[in-house]
Amino acid sequence: MIAEIISIGTELLLGQIVDTNAKYLSQKLAEIGVKVCFRQTTGDNVERIKETIVYALKRSDFIILSGGLGPTGDDCTKTAVAELAEKPLLLNEDALKKLKNIFDIRGLKMSENNKVQAYFPEGAQLIENKNGTAAGFICGIDGKRIAALPGVPSEFLQMTEDSIIPLLAKESGAGTVIKSRVLKTIGMSESRLAEILEDIFNENTNPSLAYLAGESGVSVRITAMAQKGEESERLIAGLEEKIRERIGNLIYGTDDETIEESVGKLLSGKGFSLTVAESCTGGLIGHTITNAAGASRYFERGYITYSNRAKTEMLSVPADLIEEKGAVSGEVAVEMARGARLKAGAHIGIGVTGIAGPGGGTDEKPVGLVYIAISAEDYEKVKEYRLGRERQRNKRLTSLLAVNMLRLYLTGKD
Amino acid sequence: MIAEIISIGTELLLGQIVDTNAKYLSQKLAEIGVKVCFRQTTGDNVERIKETIVYALKRSDFIILSGGLGPTGDDCTKTAVAELAEKPLLLNEDALKKLKNIFDIRGLKMSENNKVQAYFPEGAQLIENKNGTAAGFICGIDGKRIAALPGVPSEFLQMTEDSIIPLLAKESGAGTVIKSRVLKTIGMSESRLAEILEDIFNENTNPSLAYLAGESGVSVRITAMAQKGEESERLIAGLEEKIRERIGNLIYGTDDETIEESVGKLLSGKGFSLTVAESCTGGLIGHTITNAAGASRYFERGYITYSNRAKTEMLSVPADLIEEKGAVSGEVAVEMARGARLKAGAHIGIGVTGIAGPGGGTDEKPVGLVYIAISAEDYEKVKEYRLGRERQRNKRLTSLLAVNMLRLYLTGKD
Repeated sequence: MIAEIISIGTELLLGQIVDTNAKYLSQKLAEIGVKVCFRQTTGDNVERIKETIVYALKRSDFIILSGGLGPTGDDCTKTAVAELAEKPLLLNEDALKKLKNIFDIRGLKMSENNKVQAYFPEGAQLIENKNGTAAGFICGIDGKRIAALPGVPSEFLQMTEDSIIPLLAKESGAGTVIKSRVLKTIGMSESRLAEILEDIFNENTNPSLAYLAGESGVSVRITAMAQKGEESERLIAGLEEKIRERIGNLIYGTDDETIEESVGKLLSGKGFSLTVAESCTGGLIGHTITNAAGASRYFERGYITYSNRAKTEMLSVPADLIEEKGAVSGEVAVEMARGARLKAGAHIGIGVTGIAGPGGGTDEKPVGLVYIAISAEDYEKVKEYRLGRERQRNKRLTSLLAVNMLRLYLTGKD
Repeated sequence: MIAEIISIGTELLLGQIVDTNAKYLSQKLAEIGVKVCFRQTTGDNVERIKETIVYALKRSDFIILSGGLGPTGDDCTKTAVAELAEKPLLLNEDALKKLKNIFDIRGLKMSENNKVQAYFPEGAQLIENKNGTAAGFICGIDGKRIAALPGVPSEFLQMTEDSIIPLLAKESGAGTVIKSRVLKTIGMSESRLAEILEDIFNENTNPSLAYLAGESGVSVRITAMAQKGEESERLIAGLEEKIRERIGNLIYGTDDETIEESVGKLLSGKGFSLTVAESCTGGLIGHTITNAAGASRYFERGYITYSNRAKTEMLSVPADLIEEKGAVSGEVAVEMARGARLKAGAHIGIGVTGIAGPGGGTDEKPVGLVYIAISAEDYEKVKEYRLGRERQRNKRLTSLLAVNMLRLYLTGKD
């Protein structure tokens, strides 16, 4: 089976957003062995949408459209599909009920415009949207099928994962299966990693290795192809073992696992509780920790101490110490971590202080200078980092480094 | 002039990377008034590349290919273009010299493979690559032109910026300049907005209106085309005024302005200080507020009270009240906001409690139920929201709604 993806939206053609939906779907289709030979992008224009579908129908079996299902005048994907299929758009009473229900739950009044979202080409099979009002649909043309999904990424992702991928996985049964596993690393640059793994990289074509550097570390992706999924899995497992022998301590998780989930498991497993005292990150570490479902098992409270007064009043950091060493100092970070741990009655405290920027830097203490401390009853450590000049990146990196420091402590790899 | 972008690379079709080149080039072309109606993506395959070019030649004047100019066997963009143009690939001595020079500078030996990068379709005009070995080229077919650039983003960007954009800007000189302004709104659904602005939407084609719904509200984009930039600006300003008359209170910023920056300005302007007491958001509101540079002027501390005990100990929320009404209740949200405000000695306190999910919901208090309270000396308000089932989305929406509630209070639009 050959699939084709058509992304619809003038905002794409104007370069206002990057097309993450097409990337995501391409990856999912590859995973289930469905081949994609072409992708197309066009704007919110009936004739142009029809043109892309006509080309796709010539060469692909299953066409997935993303975007143009909104309730406003510029959304015209349904019209294009209906015209090509030579079917009328009909009101679907079930869909209308669901739509009304969504508005009720949100406590909003449904407008006349919204009813558009309950109309579908005659005979179309509906696809449920759990995150929004735009239901999708699948519709046949010339013995091929066209699926239309909304372009909002959270909606597109849910519907792809719950409907399109299971459907195509079932149908595509045989053929080559491409599988991949991502080993998520932190603490080493892409080029240094590539040096360490160079011989493995060169010796292997199936499975193959690829690096993807992101803000939260470097992902090492292993991709294998075989006739059956199990064979692909076996190929991946063999290579993964070799890689783990070299850089095991840098790997915090696989595939979609986040570092906070990984750390959450470690904390739960050991029965430890955690608290945080944040200055420059302003709450981001608490937010990160609580992104993992079930965080309440180990995270009970946190302190956002943005000012000196807050550090003293909330965490008993001595005012003299702040005066002497400066709020951005290793000593204050340690006092914050310890103070938070003792106040909260937690096993572990994290303390963070730094200069996020863009202002507030001096020659001695420039923007990007950050101290991260961890305090436990039998352990205390502080690290200094010199990050960049960009405020939000500094916050994100600091949070990530703090959570990784905690991971290294919990795994004894520190 | 109509341009079309064709991205070439099997890694794109496998979903291993996101196509930032196409986004970047689309944006640059829009800025100089060159229209893009279609984009295509295909793999490293001569016949398929030819197919995309054939379609593009039918409808576009200038076609830009990205990718497939590397020295390895799977790079075949040049072959495809040469076959379509019916020109041989010839060795370019100048290019070969440059190539050898790059290898010398890097202290590397040039392999036979690399020589491929010095061959170009007969008559092609070369494009210099300052960041790598793959020179690009422009070649005519059927009175249209095709430009081929490497896919490595740093190389693609440099060559686009130094060669393609100046060339097309010069040629389209007499042509139109597209400008756009985004009005960022929050608090109303896309469809309701579209209803309110329907007549404006229908009456205007230049400037035109478009809606882009995202998680942080709906962006209303005004796009205008004119011979000169100032004329586009004037057209935009006229329409913006009309829109502001209708929905001014929903607009929190323009273009890249974030809601936290907008609220930060309001707080600074009034000399108010702010504190937050967060339960289900786990620190995200503090993080959001402190994303705005200079937040220390009005934000001094925050409380992450994830447990009942933390709410009582840190904010003096009565344990009885939590027992009676539940931790997720409007009453507790108000006590949190007030408690935080009084403890911190701030002008305004925000209190948030809810069930982020995926667990912890009941029939009476389902996942997604959230209470947000604002407390000031002469003002107290709490709102109930019923959001979705997705943990991280619930956290993000809650934070956004809280900051917007603060905005409405500060602007007196509540």
